[in-house]
Amino acid sequence: MTDLPDTNLTMLTLVKPEGELEVFFERRPMPEPAPHEVLVKILATPINPSDLGLLFGAADMASARASERDGLPVVTADIPAPGMRAMAPRVGQALPIGNEGCGLVVKAGASPEAQALLGKTVAVLGGEIYAEYRCLPAQMCMELPEGTDPKDGASCFVNPLTSLAFTETMRMEGHSALVHTAAASNLGQMLVKICAKDGIPLVNIVRSAAQAELLKGIGAKYVVNSSDEDFLDKLTAALVETGATCGFDAIGGGKLAGQILACMEAAAVKRMTTYSRYGSDTFKQVYIYGALDVGPTVLNRSFGFSWSLSGFLLTPFMQKAGADVVGRMRARVVAELTTTFKSHYSHEISLTDALSLDTIANYNAKRTGEKYLIRPHG
Amino acid sequence: MTDLPDTNLTMLTLVKPEGELEVFFERRPMPEPAPHEVLVKILATPINPSDLGLLFGAADMASARASERDGLPVVTADIPAPGMRAMAPRVGQALPIGNEGCGLVVKAGASPEAQALLGKTVAVLGGEIYAEYRCLPAQMCMELPEGTDPKDGASCFVNPLTSLAFTETMRMEGHSALVHTAAASNLGQMLVKICAKDGIPLVNIVRSAAQAELLKGIGAKYVVNSSDEDFLDKLTAALVETGATCGFDAIGGGKLAGQILACMEAAAVKRMTTYSRYGSDTFKQVYIYGALDVGPTVLNRSFGFSWSLSGFLLTPFMQKAGADVVGRMRARVVAELTTTFKSHYSHEISLTDALSLDTIANYNAKRTGEKYLIRPHG
Repeated sequence: MTDLPDTNLTMLTLVKPEGELEVFFERRPMPEPAPHEVLVKILATPINPSDLGLLFGAADMASARASERDGLPVVTADIPAPGMRAMAPRVGQALPIGNEGCGLVVKAGASPEAQALLGKTVAVLGGEIYAEYRCLPAQMCMELPEGTDPKDGASCFVNPLTSLAFTETMRMEGHSALVHTAAASNLGQMLVKICAKDGIPLVNIVRSAAQAELLKGIGAKYVVNSSDEDFLDKLTAALVETGATCGFDAIGGGKLAGQILACMEAAAVKRMTTYSRYGSDTFKQVYIYGALDVGPTVLNRSFGFSWSLSGFLLTPFMQKAGADVVGRMRARVVAELTTTFKSHYSHEISLTDALSLDTIANYNAKRTGEKYLIRPHG
Repeated sequence: MTDLPDTNLTMLTLVKPEGELEVFFERRPMPEPAPHEVLVKILATPINPSDLGLLFGAADMASARASERDGLPVVTADIPAPGMRAMAPRVGQALPIGNEGCGLVVKAGASPEAQALLGKTVAVLGGEIYAEYRCLPAQMCMELPEGTDPKDGASCFVNPLTSLAFTETMRMEGHSALVHTAAASNLGQMLVKICAKDGIPLVNIVRSAAQAELLKGIGAKYVVNSSDEDFLDKLTAALVETGATCGFDAIGGGKLAGQILACMEAAAVKRMTTYSRYGSDTFKQVYIYGALDVGPTVLNRSFGFSWSLSGFLLTPFMQKAGADVVGRMRARVVAELTTTFKSHYSHEISLTDALSLDTIANYNAKRTGEKYLIRPHG
């Protein structure tokens, strides 16, 4: 056994009843694995948009101020009244954070499946990863090949499995091509590579010429820039060419999801021979899986009656898809970890750095091309 | 055989390339039924919101003006430029109108199934019913019991089958209670009666106290008025009590569809024991089946990621549900034609009356409680 410290530095986020958010650290007692559990020394854990939602909730981060407690950073921020309504269910609960990461199994429970992981590099999913150590059931770990750089293993789940879930969903629901927004993201780049490999036509929507260049550089065929004046025409043309009737939208707010449905409909109507006031009978599906824009979604319903706009989350998808599909997805992630599913990090920081105000302002801006990796042990 | 006239007065709607709508009549040659067809003398046909969409399209009816051609009324109106884009597929085509009606089979083709209908009162679905006669395949007719008042048979399809489709959809998709908007409509009243009979909890959303009274008068248990200041609280309370997670919205535009999803989520969260930033895992579905408000749908996405907002149309539903389900639905409509599915008409007009400007202004306002019935033969 490794010589373990007595305490485990853990990041926590708390909404106080008076309308204040507090993010802080606690030195918690080092957990002892139960027979079916392992203790993982966290070596790398990414800051994903999905982590930020829990971390800062509805707080106004422009009001954030720094302090210290027991020599550890504390960040406090105000939560506007409307935001407090959404926060009601978590008031008073100090919640641990961090969806995924990569580390070394340094202690294992007595069960064979736990013991089998001792000394192995594993990818972990399951919350509470923004900490020095994480104790969790062996089955929540995915063993990575010997010699895997923890940096490469840090983002094994959220982006890789989500991007694979898009293509699985597309096939399950009878579509043959995809649309993706905020397409220059880490996830978007993975999707470009998956679709190229699997022969799936993919229409990428980006917000700038630089993002378009980036995607074309990694082989994307259809890239449409929503800042262009003729965006809707170009999107429609790409939809006519690809026949895409299934989209995944990371943005959520604004008109984009509705514009995708409208352009899908325009592409479908071009194939119709008789007029129907109900629009085409081509079924069009857009999933909102993120909230880069937390403002309202605005739909100008110019797309008939054969459409659906839905929320999308990885966990319910995996439950619905079943163990076989998920097993196949996981195996592919491991096999293509340093190619298709390679993540790029612009910054590496320590656990306590993650609560410096400057750093927060940077990663909370969610800029394309900027991605933070926390290295709790340097 | 009845002594038939040579011509068949038929209403037509035409979008002209210069941005003008023209609704007019044509005396078309009396059709001759093919072997599998019957000729129906149309005795009663309702003006449904679904007819108005085709009838006036995107025209600005405030600009409507009346004229005459061959002694028959003509209505002309301007179509604003943005509307013309949506109208593009129908430019230059004079389209017949009228989704459903009731009449007498006055002539039949040689086939046994056509001959069997001769002299019978039938309900018909299939467009082109705003006419004195309609020739159509025998299988598109539903035979009604002898002595049925054509007024009772006029609205056999659109509202009865749509309201039944709501409860069928609810069951097929695993929900156990319903929400309905514009609930004081003819369709809404049918739904109240169906749900009462079938023991389905139904939350009715109306816009006025008078509408609430009307529904309570026919036995509705849950009625919420969206004009009340505490509407959202009352809606949430009704959703907690009923557990409704499936809604049908006739309005489409504005915030209501999103509010229903948000209140369903609030009801679901009340049942949760631990906080999740992704919201509840209760799946919430709202279908938009009408467009009483053609403005944009605005969703403040405060309802997690387990939701879907979709278009709903009767015809694709029936195709998906299959012949057995549709057969059962039709049989129920006939059996309960003068009870559950009784329609109420505030006005009876002739075919040519339907194109008087005053009458148009009235029925195009789609006021609850006002419904027009066209009686082509007086």
